[in-house]
Amino acid sequence: MKSKTSKESLTINTELVLPNDTNVLGNLMGGRLLHWMDICSAISAHRHCGRIVVTASVNNVSFNQPIKLGEIVTMHAKVSRAFTSSMEVFIDVWVENNNTGERKKCNEAIYTFVAVDQLGNPINVPECIAETEEEKKDLMAHYAEGNLH
Amino acid sequence: MKSKTSKESLTINTELVLPNDTNVLGNLMGGRLLHWMDICSAISAHRHCGRIVVTASVNNVSFNQPIKLGEIVTMHAKVSRAFTSSMEVFIDVWVENNNTGERKKCNEAIYTFVAVDQLGNPINVPECIAETEEEKKDLMAHYAEGNLH
Amino acid sequence: MKSKTSKESLTINTELVLPNDTNVLGNLMGGRLLHWMDICSAISAHRHCGRIVVTASVNNVSFNQPIKLGEIVTMHAKVSRAFTSSMEVFIDVWVENNNTGERKKCNEAIYTFVAVDQLGNPINVPECIAETEEEKKDLMAHYAEGNLH
Amino acid sequence: MKSKTSKESLTINTELVLPNDTNVLGNLMGGRLLHWMDICSAISAHRHCGRIVVTASVNNVSFNQPIKLGEIVTMHAKVSRAFTSSMEVFIDVWVENNNTGERKKCNEAIYTFVAVDQLGNPINVPECIAETEEEKKDLMAHYAEGNLH
Amino acid sequence: MKSKTSKESLTINTELVLPNDTNVLGNLMGGRLLHWMDICSAISAHRHCGRIVVTASVNNVSFNQPIKLGEIVTMHAKVSRAFTSSMEVFIDVWVENNNTGERKKCNEAIYTFVAVDQLGNPINVPECIAETEEEKKDLMAHYAEGNLH
Amino acid sequence: MKSKTSKESLTINTELVLPNDTNVLGNLMGGRLLHWMDICSAISAHRHCGRIVVTASVNNVSFNQPIKLGEIVTMHAKVSRAFTSSMEVFIDVWVENNNTGERKKCNEAIYTFVAVDQLGNPINVPECIAETEEEKKDLMAHYAEGNLH
Repeated sequence: MKSKTSKESLTINTELVLPNDTNVLGNLMGGRLLHWMDICSAISAHRHCGRIVVTASVNNVSFNQPIKLGEIVTMHAKVSRAFTSSMEVFIDVWVENNNTGERKKCNEAIYTFVAVDQLGNPINVPECIAETEEEKKDLMAHYAEGNLH
Repeated sequence: MKSKTSKESLTINTELVLPNDTNVLGNLMGGRLLHWMDICSAISAHRHCGRIVVTASVNNVSFNQPIKLGEIVTMHAKVSRAFTSSMEVFIDVWVENNNTGERKKCNEAIYTFVAVDQLGNPINVPECIAETEEEKKDLMAHYAEGNLH
Repeated sequence: MKSKTSKESLTINTELVLPNDTNVLGNLMGGRLLHWMDICSAISAHRHCGRIVVTASVNNVSFNQPIKLGEIVTMHAKVSRAFTSSMEVFIDVWVENNNTGERKKCNEAIYTFVAVDQLGNPINVPECIAETEEEKKDLMAHYAEGNLH
Repeated sequence: MKSKTSKESLTINTELVLPNDTNVLGNLMGGRLLHWMDICSAISAHRHCGRIVVTASVNNVSFNQPIKLGEIVTMHAKVSRAFTSSMEVFIDVWVENNNTGERKKCNEAIYTFVAVDQLGNPINVPECIAETEEEKKDLMAHYAEGNLH
Repeated sequence: MKSKTSKESLTINTELVLPNDTNVLGNLMGGRLLHWMDICSAISAHRHCGRIVVTASVNNVSFNQPIKLGEIVTMHAKVSRAFTSSMEVFIDVWVENNNTGERKKCNEAIYTFVAVDQLGNPINVPECIAETEEEKKDLMAHYAEGNLH
Repeated sequence: MKSKTSKESLTINTELVLPNDTNVLGNLMGGRLLHWMDICSAISAHRHCGRIVVTASVNNVSFNQPIKLGEIVTMHAKVSRAFTSSMEVFIDVWVENNNTGERKKCNEAIYTFVAVDQLGNPINVPECIAETEEEKKDLMAHYAEGNLH
């Protein structure tokens, strides 16, 4: 099985906060965001291993700022580590100011997935080659230039 | 502000796993369950304080067994602790075997909520009186008798 | 087939009224409530017989008071009678005042279900042992104490 | 207020049964159909009075035959009577055989609605002129010719 | 295979604009309308050929006026032409003024569908007999009389 | 108003095809895809102008290949031209082979949006600086290297 880089599993999802996603204050409900993050992370894990994946766990997630109706939420998920049949996915969430377009990081989480066959039995996944320091620096520079992706 | 017991905030939710809640294996997706748990816990926190509540965090959650299309999922949420404007809600999730009706605990989590006013500013909540050892024992006996609730 | 008591099929569901459940006045639509009641009652019937159940009928239902966006709706369903392959489920619906937490009964209905096999053919169900007068009195006392369940 | 004929409020809705509308047998759930019927009837009542309408009640509804995933359901709703602020809507439901196109009536119901103002207070509605015998006969002939509407 | 008239495939759908269908201005989103139009047109194509149909294309669609939350949208779809395995469906969309009930045409589109067998292979469809000039005139007169259908 | 490059409005959305998105063959319905494309394009237009945007039109869209339940759909939308108050967004859609991960372009469309103020009146948007030939070549090389984004 050919190893894959973390970058090969990058998955980006962009959601618009619609009325049914919000509570009585007109803010995005935490559970809806967890649902979006789970699907985005699962796609990333699938891209790493090319198999059916099932959620094994999610680590502690904090919600530090309200996200309003009509705001845009962007998620970036990437496999960060892989062992035997399981994959750890790191996901970042940003929200954009609707007037200035300025993007602020609002959440992050680590989801773990297991690759399974059609019967639901665990199955091996490729190794994950972590990003090098240089790649990380390039990415930072990329964002610093105001790039959205 | 009058203190409240943990039991006063008990919230029970029962969900049937429908097609759109499932992945290609016909199993409940983790994110959908997190969404249901968030709403059930939020109602519990609301019952404790009688105010608008917003999700502040969720601790680590594990998914140990597949839950199938058509199965019944029951959640029990109760406020376990309260400090200043925040409440900790403990939630248990059970799934029932569709033939025997036997119920197995499949997940648990701790969600934290903050009570806010109409402008979203934090606001004090009542103290929470934890369950006594006797109450816990009664509850165990209650379940042991095969009671569903 | 072992008889079952009415209480063994008790099913509780708690829903938060979200934007898409409401009409232009911000009130819960009757049809959405009928949908929730059908699923809650079907789970109750399933708990009685352990088989697939299909809705056979619902009796007259009245909607006497508006239920607002953000309010909490609780349903209690229990099999009240069973004959051959059909089960009668009695369901009560309460709404809570968002400030005082006071709960008011707002609807009730009788749904009838038929137990069927994988091909959709009717199949016998256990007898239902109705609640005794004493059980009913206990339940009343339980609610009178301010218990939510 | 000008009287209106029953025919002026005719509302037709056609739905395709999608996966999330079905139970584990792949049949349309009763509650989903009740939800569709409520909205179709409410539009009919609104067409009669031109005001906001809220569901007051639905009479007994029976479900006599399974409706399958992928089948087409057509509803015809018409105000049949009107008094003070309330309107009675008669609704018929047909399902089409997916191969022959043959249409069979599968449900009927009477929903009652109340017209309200922006504050939710009842408000008078126009009288309803019932269909004449001749109109009913014409309609029958129309259907007998194989017309879908 | 027996030819069919355009009229035999007439499909009418009536939708109420609900909160989750709208953008931050409270107007129906274009994509939601395209989704409704696709399903209504697909049912029409299915009524023509009695087979599974898949969307092949949609021509240019313009959105000329905002449709508000709580407004009623009515669609009329009819097969206008058929060749080999494909069918062209013409669909009109009207919106009603919530106070006067006046109906204004707001969109139109041409969707094309292909009839396929269970494996997804194209399969022949009946010829379509276009409406005669007289039928078109009758229809105009019918609408001119204020008929909704 | 400062001009913006096409690249600044790039919006990426990744969707997993779930049961309720599919027809009886288990293929993604065309209308659902049009809905996803509309939202992704609208976010792109919003990123260009920082104002509320409403869909003005969509050009002809073809659906050339079935997309199956459980497959991953990725959309890339970018403003390609801007005049006065309107923006043209070009959107590409790819589907991934679930086993090999190979990505095939399956759809493309041009959506047009108008920027409006809170009252729905048109309002000017920044100029759009088209991509240079060099940028286009870089992008091609980027894709050729097997990058997903």
